[in-house]
Amino acid sequence: MLHPDRLFPADPATRDMARALYATVKDLPIISPHGHTDPRWYAENALFPDPARLFVVPDHYIYRMLYSQGVRLEDLGIPRLDGTAVEQDPRKIWRLFAKHYFLFRGTPTRIWIDHAFETLFGLTERLSPANADHHYDVIEAALHSEAFRPRALFDRMGIEVISTTDGALDDLGWHRMIRESGWKGRVVPAYRPDAVVDPEFRGFRENVERLGALTGEQTGSWEGYLRAHQARRAYFKEFGATSSDHGHASAATANLDPGEASALFQRVLKPGVSAADAELFRAQMLTEMARMSLEDGLVLQIHPGSFRNHNALLFERFGRDTGADIPQRTDYVRALKPLLDAHGNDSRLSVILFTLDETSYARELAPLAGHYPCLKLGPAWWFFDAPDGMRRFRDLTTETAGFYNTVGFNDDTRAFPSIPARHDVARRVDCAFLAERVVTHRVDEDEAFALAHDLAYRLAKEAYRL
Amino acid sequence: MLHPDRLFPADPATRDMARALYATVKDLPIISPHGHTDPRWYAENALFPDPARLFVVPDHYIYRMLYSQGVRLEDLGIPRLDGTAVEQDPRKIWRLFAKHYFLFRGTPTRIWIDHAFETLFGLTERLSPANADHHYDVIEAALHSEAFRPRALFDRMGIEVISTTDGALDDLGWHRMIRESGWKGRVVPAYRPDAVVDPEFRGFRENVERLGALTGEQTGSWEGYLRAHQARRAYFKEFGATSSDHGHASAATANLDPGEASALFQRVLKPGVSAADAELFRAQMLTEMARMSLEDGLVLQIHPGSFRNHNALLFERFGRDTGADIPQRTDYVRALKPLLDAHGNDSRLSVILFTLDETSYARELAPLAGHYPCLKLGPAWWFFDAPDGMRRFRDLTTETAGFYNTVGFNDDTRAFPSIPARHDVARRVDCAFLAERVVTHRVDEDEAFALAHDLAYRLAKEAYRL
Amino acid sequence: MLHPDRLFPADPATRDMARALYATVKDLPIISPHGHTDPRWYAENALFPDPARLFVVPDHYIYRMLYSQGVRLEDLGIPRLDGTAVEQDPRKIWRLFAKHYFLFRGTPTRIWIDHAFETLFGLTERLSPANADHHYDVIEAALHSEAFRPRALFDRMGIEVISTTDGALDDLGWHRMIRESGWKGRVVPAYRPDAVVDPEFRGFRENVERLGALTGEQTGSWEGYLRAHQARRAYFKEFGATSSDHGHASAATANLDPGEASALFQRVLKPGVSAADAELFRAQMLTEMARMSLEDGLVLQIHPGSFRNHNALLFERFGRDTGADIPQRTDYVRALKPLLDAHGNDSRLSVILFTLDETSYARELAPLAGHYPCLKLGPAWWFFDAPDGMRRFRDLTTETAGFYNTVGFNDDTRAFPSIPARHDVARRVDCAFLAERVVTHRVDEDEAFALAHDLAYRLAKEAYRL
Repeated sequence: MLHPDRLFPADPATRDMARALYATVKDLPIISPHGHTDPRWYAENALFPDPARLFVVPDHYIYRMLYSQGVRLEDLGIPRLDGTAVEQDPRKIWRLFAKHYFLFRGTPTRIWIDHAFETLFGLTERLSPANADHHYDVIEAALHSEAFRPRALFDRMGIEVISTTDGALDDLGWHRMIRESGWKGRVVPAYRPDAVVDPEFRGFRENVERLGALTGEQTGSWEGYLRAHQARRAYFKEFGATSSDHGHASAATANLDPGEASALFQRVLKPGVSAADAELFRAQMLTEMARMSLEDGLVLQIHPGSFRNHNALLFERFGRDTGADIPQRTDYVRALKPLLDAHGNDSRLSVILFTLDETSYARELAPLAGHYPCLKLGPAWWFFDAPDGMRRFRDLTTETAGFYNTVGFNDDTRAFPSIPARHDVARRVDCAFLAERVVTHRVDEDEAFALAHDLAYRLAKEAYRL
Repeated sequence: MLHPDRLFPADPATRDMARALYATVKDLPIISPHGHTDPRWYAENALFPDPARLFVVPDHYIYRMLYSQGVRLEDLGIPRLDGTAVEQDPRKIWRLFAKHYFLFRGTPTRIWIDHAFETLFGLTERLSPANADHHYDVIEAALHSEAFRPRALFDRMGIEVISTTDGALDDLGWHRMIRESGWKGRVVPAYRPDAVVDPEFRGFRENVERLGALTGEQTGSWEGYLRAHQARRAYFKEFGATSSDHGHASAATANLDPGEASALFQRVLKPGVSAADAELFRAQMLTEMARMSLEDGLVLQIHPGSFRNHNALLFERFGRDTGADIPQRTDYVRALKPLLDAHGNDSRLSVILFTLDETSYARELAPLAGHYPCLKLGPAWWFFDAPDGMRRFRDLTTETAGFYNTVGFNDDTRAFPSIPARHDVARRVDCAFLAERVVTHRVDEDEAFALAHDLAYRLAKEAYRL
Repeated sequence: MLHPDRLFPADPATRDMARALYATVKDLPIISPHGHTDPRWYAENALFPDPARLFVVPDHYIYRMLYSQGVRLEDLGIPRLDGTAVEQDPRKIWRLFAKHYFLFRGTPTRIWIDHAFETLFGLTERLSPANADHHYDVIEAALHSEAFRPRALFDRMGIEVISTTDGALDDLGWHRMIRESGWKGRVVPAYRPDAVVDPEFRGFRENVERLGALTGEQTGSWEGYLRAHQARRAYFKEFGATSSDHGHASAATANLDPGEASALFQRVLKPGVSAADAELFRAQMLTEMARMSLEDGLVLQIHPGSFRNHNALLFERFGRDTGADIPQRTDYVRALKPLLDAHGNDSRLSVILFTLDETSYARELAPLAGHYPCLKLGPAWWFFDAPDGMRRFRDLTTETAGFYNTVGFNDDTRAFPSIPARHDVARRVDCAFLAERVVTHRVDEDEAFALAHDLAYRLAKEAYRL
């Protein structure tokens, strides 16, 4: 299934150049500075249960597509919050997946799955209803072997370092277990404080109290609350964290004076917080996080623009992350100004911006990153971490921001077997892009080879201080 | 004028693949599920009057371009509302058109006209002032022949089914006449209720009264008004309608409780309706139409985003549809939520979304259609139903929504002779897109052939339940 | 460094066609109807001081990129407002530039600089730390020769006419000096009245008083103020001006009745003007300028969408134009309506629209320009006057507006040595675009040759009435 020239340009001369570039980067170690794999996997190093629970059940890219064509989530084994029975037979789930595999024609999911099938399981025939059981049997058999335990896969995939994403209240017990196991694999956490930063997060007030209990700080006061964040960040750093991550609905930042911020904090701790106060508090906290970054060196990632849990029925029935997070228009120029006015000229600060609104790439993000010392652009993300999306990212940012205000690739995934495929796609797309630049005499050949290495490996490592 | 490889990629290997794909779809029947041809043509089957009135006078794509370069609409024979004399000599209009034909270089109008000239009239030389009279004479002579009557053209064009668009108050008399004529051509209406749904439509209140008179319902009450819609929809279905069509300024939907909706209806029936109430009423009516669709199975088409009649002077002088409808920014994520909260998870419902704001393709529409069972994406529309526009549609939607949340092509035209050209362009562009996917090993060859057929024929037929 | 095929498509057949087209336009004279070169250069015809002050210090494209990677502006010799010492040694600045030259990989700056190095100074090796001194010495030596005086360069660059951009209060003394010198080079001013039109411009009220003093009009009254503009426009026309230029934050226009406008004018003359009044006044003045254009024939350029001086610290330290002007979302459809309602159908008026928001190209600008007789589209601008940006401009506007509602290229630059490079890039990109249209049989070959000439030369000359 995997043609060696996949994703390379059709023009023969350009394809030759893409091949030559790719040959120098395809085997580089994987730097995965932002993602959502479960640290428990690496800690326990247990066998994965079955093909459906490895590929289908946890992957919202897959089940949203099937859902869009009328397949019930219950039939895919997605657990319901109310405990209503859902399909438990992994083989049935797998057959349903196979029956609808044609829906993924032209999508990145297809590329990732085919890549995992072939490189991890030696399956070279496209999944279909006819071969569904065969594929299932092959994968299931493999999953019982030592070579398919998480740590063995980690090594086989060539991962040099991977970051998980962890709530501020997480005790990092799995990370501790990894450390104490003596295993050499480098798995680090990232500080994701939504639950204690977003007043609209379920249980926000209780979460802030738990934050206090965890740190011994009086989180009922603004000063104590900030100190508690500092303490948690320091704790995360002990386990190797180099970044924090913030997924607000907008990119709004604020820089209130301490008295105003303190009063706002008291308001958001009370029930019935207004939407405006909630937004302002999240905005203020981005600037506070930037300030803490100046002290402790964590890289600040801003991932705005998603309307979370858009589908009210599914949210109620299945909970968060069931595939109904929809991008929306996101403005950066005014939104980021308070943070930038405060710290934007400090080159010790490193802020990595992501977007789900591609209209901001050329209009806002590239000009901002091409000016402010603290700003860099994260790679094409989520719905756009696919060949066309990645290509548009380069097309729309390079002329203004260059390559060196970008940070290489990150896979951002909880789908473990897709990690090598995702990095491979990014490397191929970047090599194709560079090859076209060489053949049209816009970038010299020696520069393209240097850039290919930078984009595949060095920039991610440096930008994330890994 | 028509090169057999037009619109195919330049790269030889990719072009070969595009040719092979196209060969299998070029002669498929035309499914035209959304358009604006006049049912009277098929009913009366009269000769078209002259070349100018066939090609120039009814085509706002043509006269807006000439107008943008200083040609007066009066000189193109566009009738004025006040009855002021306009040019009546079709040959003079034709010569003016020919003189400015160079303006269409690089535009879809040029492709459509050249295609009609060559395939319908055997004209193989590009229109110019020098050959204007010759072209006129050839076309005029043809228009006097039986082979150029609407029904003969319909058959010759290979139309399997075509939908017109008809006001809710239309008696469908021409459709009745077609039915009663015994002609086998399949022409169906679509339910377009703007005049009785949009409180800002001229004559809205009188229209609602007429709606009552037509249906025997008390349209002064909310319940009666809704029943009257149901009755009209049933009437349209008798003539083969399978869809309704809604062209609001925005995509706003609402889901008020019946008491609120009823009170709103009473307010919009009174003079001096506020812009907010008008918008809210249109929004509410989209959800009501969705509810009716659940009952009667009509597909719901939403065509938002046009600022109608932008040019105040032309609107006053020439009326609606004189070429000054300008797209504007359109948001879907919040706008559609009320309708989707109500019925978005019901896979019996089929809502086809269009846009004039390409920024929403990747950011909003593909993620929405790639999740909600009821949503599908209409093809590139209006200003974007051209090779580059169609290509961007595929580039920006496929990775997230796949192909199977799209509905094939519809020509959306009142320019009868352009119908085969428009479908041919869509087929060529899709085959070119698929060929590139094959050559870059992103779609398998057998899949591309299946997809080519689906995009050219099957998806339109199924999505519109034709 | 300059490959003869640079920027041409990779496909051999398409490249051949691009070459053929380009051969017919590459030596056409340069029409530069909008730019920011200093008329003093042409007036005094003095030698340029040194390589750093020719290439680095005045070019915000260069220093913003270096700044984004942590280089201090002081170290690049950018003067501070408070007189704090900055680097004065041009060789040190040059070495710093050379050290960071790799940052420009893939950017237009790289293309422009390489082009100037090779064509003006005979340097054929890419700038690097290793050859920085050599390049410096070669350029410095050349700058001491007669052939590198501004007028000699002007002739050598093949400039037929160039427009500067001049404040409304400018006495055009340098333009007078050029006129009186007997030199044949055609340098004309453009009327840029921001300082007396934008109530938020520093010193606005004093500027309006100076406007009165210059013209002998009572600029304390609305009528006198308008007459003063007319007088200054007439004065600019004496020196060859054919256009005015307006760089507001938004594209808002207004058409108040004279009483309202007069009252608004009195309000904005007072301290503490509100943001809404300032915006409304700028909006009104665009319509007033359109009215004056109907009288005096100046072409009206609207350059909206920049958030000026976004970086508060740099603005305070270095002043305007230090690289922190960031594009923002810009709407045209509603914004332009008041002006268009007033004068949009008058084909004597010529309004050239620019944007920094590419989302408006296809959605708003092309449909507007493809309809209104007075509107034309300016070329890709500022961050987008680069190969990809120019290409997107054609991709997104041609199908709706055609080529003849566009106005060719303008370089919009203060970087004198980059002018030929910029026009060369535009010609290559347009020829590449046309070549692809020919090879895919969308534009006939003879038409492409005509279009290449139009886009490179004729349209700019005609649209700007030069």
